[in-house]
Amino acid sequence: MERITLAHGDGGELAHQLIQQLFVAHFHHDAFVKFDAALLSIEKGKLAITTDSFVVKPLFFPGGNIGKLAVVGTVNDLAVSGAIPKAITCGFILEEGFPISDLKRIVQSMAEEAQKIGVAIVAGDTKVVERGAADGIYINTTGIGIVEEPLVPSFQEGDSVIISGSVGDHGITIFAARGELGLMTNLTSDCAALSPMISQATKASKQIRIMRDPTRGGLATALVEICEDFQLTIELSEDAIPIKREVEGACDLLGFDPLYLANEGKVIFIVAKEDEQKVLQAIRSREEGKEAAVIGTVRATEKGQLLLRTPLGTTRRLYRLTGLLLPRIC
Amino acid sequence: MERITLAHGDGGELAHQLIQQLFVAHFHHDAFVKFDAALLSIEKGKLAITTDSFVVKPLFFPGGNIGKLAVVGTVNDLAVSGAIPKAITCGFILEEGFPISDLKRIVQSMAEEAQKIGVAIVAGDTKVVERGAADGIYINTTGIGIVEEPLVPSFQEGDSVIISGSVGDHGITIFAARGELGLMTNLTSDCAALSPMISQATKASKQIRIMRDPTRGGLATALVEICEDFQLTIELSEDAIPIKREVEGACDLLGFDPLYLANEGKVIFIVAKEDEQKVLQAIRSREEGKEAAVIGTVRATEKGQLLLRTPLGTTRRLYRLTGLLLPRIC
Repeated sequence: MERITLAHGDGGELAHQLIQQLFVAHFHHDAFVKFDAALLSIEKGKLAITTDSFVVKPLFFPGGNIGKLAVVGTVNDLAVSGAIPKAITCGFILEEGFPISDLKRIVQSMAEEAQKIGVAIVAGDTKVVERGAADGIYINTTGIGIVEEPLVPSFQEGDSVIISGSVGDHGITIFAARGELGLMTNLTSDCAALSPMISQATKASKQIRIMRDPTRGGLATALVEICEDFQLTIELSEDAIPIKREVEGACDLLGFDPLYLANEGKVIFIVAKEDEQKVLQAIRSREEGKEAAVIGTVRATEKGQLLLRTPLGTTRRLYRLTGLLLPRIC
Repeated sequence: MERITLAHGDGGELAHQLIQQLFVAHFHHDAFVKFDAALLSIEKGKLAITTDSFVVKPLFFPGGNIGKLAVVGTVNDLAVSGAIPKAITCGFILEEGFPISDLKRIVQSMAEEAQKIGVAIVAGDTKVVERGAADGIYINTTGIGIVEEPLVPSFQEGDSVIISGSVGDHGITIFAARGELGLMTNLTSDCAALSPMISQATKASKQIRIMRDPTRGGLATALVEICEDFQLTIELSEDAIPIKREVEGACDLLGFDPLYLANEGKVIFIVAKEDEQKVLQAIRSREEGKEAAVIGTVRATEKGQLLLRTPLGTTRRLYRLTGLLLPRIC
């Protein structure tokens, strides 16, 4: 089997061949000039820019792989900021000895996913480090989007909080895929591009006030950040949060809290109460949004707090994830 | 000493603190919203986009460190494409146990360099991997620039090839800094932003036809790529290529060819013969361009070949770097 060598990263003949045969072959696009610097035409407007590195372990898991995750993760950050994703760049750090066949599968996933979303992979870079100085492959993707109508975050008392589907699927899938503790599940990662669902939702309502994708740190951490950033208080209804039975079971077994587990294909919407059902319908019209639910309400009594109302009727405050839950989840 | 822990990468409270205290504190800028997604206003025009990951070893070396290199390397790719660098993003992959004081020095260098160049650091990301799954720190930077007057590459027989200074300084500096073979030198890396020198040169002449920065693979590989891309032939005069005596000595000792050693602060200009002196003067007016020299000529007799005329009067063809020279040079 062909493997990556240090010479693939030195800018010489082998690096040239790898780029031509793998990256240029898959990421063909007008804007993709030389896997080096790309030129993109834009109309006057606002650019949204976001960057993310991916170090997920294992590299291949049910529902995706590091390449798919690297494309959708960055595209999703753009989408929740109200931007239309246009272009992404990719930087690869490869470990000496990494199988070129695995790299090919990863690159193919990236190309497929980018094409599905309609985003161009416009520039790239490859570095190779010695055996033992990385864990197979790390990928950075940086995304550029155009903001036509900027989403100006706002809120009102009584606004509804919607989650587009069940939480914790990605976290438990990755944990199980590592084979630790012998956990076996039929779960797959929710890893998916959110831009189609978001554009459906924003078409259905002009009163979507805030969007956020609850990735690392999970639903709870993302909501705590929203509460702090905008000094609003959200009361969640524990009963209403969609959690798959298998995720719940694994969490009970492992002592994890599903509200803190990473998601890679979910959106939190904060929307005016009167448009709640319109947005819910729009989301549910898509396969990836079928399990969407209203999970909470914006309150004005306290400031900057995330509260959880339990089925017993008690209420407790939730905080950011503290301490280590699951490293290398994305 | 405080060190990076896996919890710094999980998106929770510690990650939040690291981002606030280190990145937001240093990279403060209007466009820098939440170290997550940034918004940038642009006029109608062309965007240039480039990405690069940096895995240089050692992290600190005479003349720079991985942070400075990450900023100038990406800015230079934009500058040689004819763009005015505007914004960069940064993605950090940190190894568990990495000293936070080292991270601070690196981040400070990045902030300083970006400010000097006038480029905004607009978004970032941090991932942490377990001890042994990376070598301290890897940094990806992605750069966005505005192209006001696109540089349309062209050439004519007789055009001059200029290099903005001595070649191989970075390569030998890094090699010596690793302490391998006990090589000791007073060399420093040429690691520097090229945009000021390039803007000086493009002001002096409207007949600069092609620019390229000879990084990995060195002067020879960059010129081979130019020859292949534009199907032109360049004849270099070996005598004319500026090489520091210490670099030459180290190369003799180690069996390296200075023409294939990485540079991080040099530009190749291909310019109309009649403007050669104007451009040379403009470059030499800057400290980092003092050793600039005309090193070759564009010929039309052959196609796509890089030729080297030796002091003995013989001519040989040069090819891309093949095989391993120095891994992790940038």
